[in-house]
Amino acid sequence: MTVPYSPGLEGVVAAQTEISEVDGQNGRLIYRGGYLIQEVAERSFEEVAYLLWHGQLPDQVQLAELKQQLGAACALNPAARQALSGLPRDADPMDALRTLVSAQGAGPDCPKPDLQGAIAATAVTPTAVAAFYRHQRGDQPLEPRPELGQAANFLYMLDGREPDADRVRYLQTYLVLLADHGLNASTFTARVVASTGTDLWSAVVAAIAALKGPAHGGAATAAMNMLERVGGPDRAERFVINALDHRERLMGFGHRVYRTYDPRARILRDLCKEANPGFYEVAAKVEEVALRELVARHPERPNATNVDYYSAGILAAAGFPTEFFACVFATSRMAGWTAHVLEYMAKDGRIIRPASQWTGPDPSKRAVVIA
Amino acid sequence: MTVPYSPGLEGVVAAQTEISEVDGQNGRLIYRGGYLIQEVAERSFEEVAYLLWHGQLPDQVQLAELKQQLGAACALNPAARQALSGLPRDADPMDALRTLVSAQGAGPDCPKPDLQGAIAATAVTPTAVAAFYRHQRGDQPLEPRPELGQAANFLYMLDGREPDADRVRYLQTYLVLLADHGLNASTFTARVVASTGTDLWSAVVAAIAALKGPAHGGAATAAMNMLERVGGPDRAERFVINALDHRERLMGFGHRVYRTYDPRARILRDLCKEANPGFYEVAAKVEEVALRELVARHPERPNATNVDYYSAGILAAAGFPTEFFACVFATSRMAGWTAHVLEYMAKDGRIIRPASQWTGPDPSKRAVVIA
Repeated sequence: MTVPYSPGLEGVVAAQTEISEVDGQNGRLIYRGGYLIQEVAERSFEEVAYLLWHGQLPDQVQLAELKQQLGAACALNPAARQALSGLPRDADPMDALRTLVSAQGAGPDCPKPDLQGAIAATAVTPTAVAAFYRHQRGDQPLEPRPELGQAANFLYMLDGREPDADRVRYLQTYLVLLADHGLNASTFTARVVASTGTDLWSAVVAAIAALKGPAHGGAATAAMNMLERVGGPDRAERFVINALDHRERLMGFGHRVYRTYDPRARILRDLCKEANPGFYEVAAKVEEVALRELVARHPERPNATNVDYYSAGILAAAGFPTEFFACVFATSRMAGWTAHVLEYMAKDGRIIRPASQWTGPDPSKRAVVIA
Repeated sequence: MTVPYSPGLEGVVAAQTEISEVDGQNGRLIYRGGYLIQEVAERSFEEVAYLLWHGQLPDQVQLAELKQQLGAACALNPAARQALSGLPRDADPMDALRTLVSAQGAGPDCPKPDLQGAIAATAVTPTAVAAFYRHQRGDQPLEPRPELGQAANFLYMLDGREPDADRVRYLQTYLVLLADHGLNASTFTARVVASTGTDLWSAVVAAIAALKGPAHGGAATAAMNMLERVGGPDRAERFVINALDHRERLMGFGHRVYRTYDPRARILRDLCKEANPGFYEVAAKVEEVALRELVARHPERPNATNVDYYSAGILAAAGFPTEFFACVFATSRMAGWTAHVLEYMAKDGRIIRPASQWTGPDPSKRAVVIA
């Protein structure tokens, strides 16, 4: 039986998974083990990564062991350092991350994905992002201080200062909320790539490549850029109506799966009030007008605010420049990507090789045919 | 409507395409414009790349222009050269290629895929492969000589000697035959990644990552390694029967789509008689026994010889070491990957975001539930 073409593979089940579930009808995001996202939102990123990899939250001994393993694997190796030194300073940070993670993972043969690799890829991602952040500014990378924990160490590696607790909390919350999200395009990419039997680094490099897209990991940057153009809460009404009248797309609204408010967006929205009140003031007003206008103009479409919208305000409050938002996203989602790769190879492992529908001419319609 | 899970997405139409068609029932491979693979097998790689990008074969002026464009874009840039210098010599060549192409493509922002980018990625791939080949041997990369043409220049860049016409012909035939092949896993990866709106380099880096897998681009290497273990045509019978009795997989047989002999394998098989008679003697005998035994043991399975089997003999005859076979495959398939990316973004462009089926517990089954 052949299943007909569904653009964007909408509605096509392309995985069985217990890593996470986006219950779009009820506005729920469920993490492995059956945890609602709200239940783990105040956990550390390390705890949530452990949950995605193992199916249960770690006890104190397990958590300490994981932190030790992350710390042992978080430094850039010589290949990645050398690749860093050659990157143009004006490169998109996601291009840099794609290259550095690829260099870090360059090794002999094609090792089967394993938990150790998942930890190594997750550990080194913030180091790579911070190293390129400094490279852009003409600075050498800093040695990681893994004893600070993944979130605080990430911020430390940007400028060499121990971040205050609030910034760490903003980043930690973001990293936890974004760590996995069903079969999004980059996670699907990681599974397709892994299905060929390739190594784990190849799968996550491909996922980074997918996440770069403005329809995916680039969306928070686009939302921030849009909100910066608004110019103040009193201009929100005119901005939104003008944009919609000119058929411009408002960034941060709508999602393939959610039919209600994204539960992550709700948490980040509340956090934005405290973390980034200037951003919140504009964003909340634009959101109010946008949802009112979108419903009025397109009542048939699901147009709730998505996670990227308030992510922008949180990532800015944590201290990241707009062009690095997708890289921070990758730092978080690395936990989910690797969990999906390990799950696919353990439970299924079949090469993902769909069919295609030929829309070109048949050779028999051409003049010269060779038997 | 939700379409149920089909492992490996078998039978799920995930693209409409006019780049190429694998007509598995009739053993036909059709390239863009309706050309049977046999009709273009003696063309140059440049002509076939043009065909995949434009839908028609080039005239002399168009071909000359393309060669000029390829020549202008085939050198490694400083970022790729720097990344090369840091790679461990024992890295898998596909890890090296993934890293060098990623570095080569690192630039500002997220440019939309275009033909110029397709040409640039196709032009630089053999340069990157040859540079790592030399790096492994402690040698500096050679400056490309694009006036030789893509195939001869590739061989020239390995050792600095102008290759004889036969080796060029073997490589050219291989490059033409492997340039596209429907919705294989790496091409599908390129389309999924491109669907997020990311740049062309990201899409092809991801495709390289997918091609590395032993169930995909690594298969010719595996076939060669297997045939080297046979030890001579007189030992083929015992080797095959012993392997099948021990439930070992014979490399080079079976395919997701073909139900008959792969037309590319037929061409490469014939070419092997001339190009690599020592290989052919063993390979043909192993094939004879394998097909007889596979049909006898698994009459329900389609088990014809696939393209990887005789690719191994041709790539060896062209002068590539076994561990570089997948990289040469990438050099060829880059034309197809980029053609698919351009087609997807021109004709569809919707983000590929399939659904998944949750196999974990529902939060309501857990003790603590937070509303």
